Amino acid sequence: MISANELEQRIRDGIPIAAQMAFQVRELSTDKISVVGGGEENINVHGTAFAGSIYAIATLALWGLVNANLPEGVSLVLADANIRYRQPIEGEIEAGCTISPDEMNAFLSQLANKGRARLQAIVTVQGRAGVAAEYQGTVFARTAPD
Amino acid sequence: MISANELEQRIRDGIPIAAQMAFQVRELSTDKISVVGGGEENINVHGTAFAGSIYAIATLALWGLVNANLPEGVSLVLADANIRYRQPIEGEIEAGCTISPDEMNAFLSQLANKGRARLQAIVTVQGRAGVAAEYQGTVFARTAPD
Repeated sequence: MISANELEQRIRDGIPIAAQMAFQVRELSTDKISVVGGGEENINVHGTAFAGSIYAIATLALWGLVNANLPEGVSLVLADANIRYRQPIEGEIEAGCTISPDEMNAFLSQLANKGRARLQAIVTVQGRAGVAAEYQGTVFARTAPD
Repeated sequence: MISANELEQRIRDGIPIAAQMAFQVRELSTDKISVVGGGEENINVHGTAFAGSIYAIATLALWGLVNANLPEGVSLVLADANIRYRQPIEGEIEAGCTISPDEMNAFLSQLANKGRARLQAIVTVQGRAGVAAEYQGTVFARTAPD
């Protein structure tokens, strides 16, 4: 499996706006990721984190964790997502995602067998004062890219 | 009511990442907005529009239309949203939002009476080949800002 630094570089290279969001992968294992982002460009008119940047960082957590588990040559896109904002974030946006080995294995098996598979997972976004946003997204993978 | 250019400037000043997304307000009236964004930093590993940027542009359409209708001194934040991606976007991200006068008036009346109000609306994102994403978001306004 690739390292946290390799995944961070893959995302910064492939999704350039991630660098404008000071995107970093803090921790990565097969079933868990922790990412962070933010910076002075990602504020809103209230001086707290912009809702769109919070969503983007959460999306990169989910996409990054699943991407890191995929074999070469698989296309992975976000199919849908929802997010609920619970409190403003001052400073860094921290997002964490955990996918159980059973869920990941079922997804990878289906992908291997059918050439396509979906996986839904929850991302939790932390601010300084606890959970700041709850995100749920579905990614779609297929072995024959667009 | 403020003009499309004034709203665009307000958003670019208050939410700096919007400028990195080449954000523009194309049309603005009391019940309708059309915005556009994108640019080379907002691509994904497939070379099409990044899901996070699509969401951010849709959010700015909703927030912008409601913000333009608000009196001074009202705080407006996104409470929740969901989005479904239907096809990849090559080139510009165009997002449109329409809120009926009845809905807007009910929202503004409640805000005036209670000091706080919510409004839910749909944003449609167009790519070159038709509807590329469907977004629904809820904004929360209150007269006493954080």
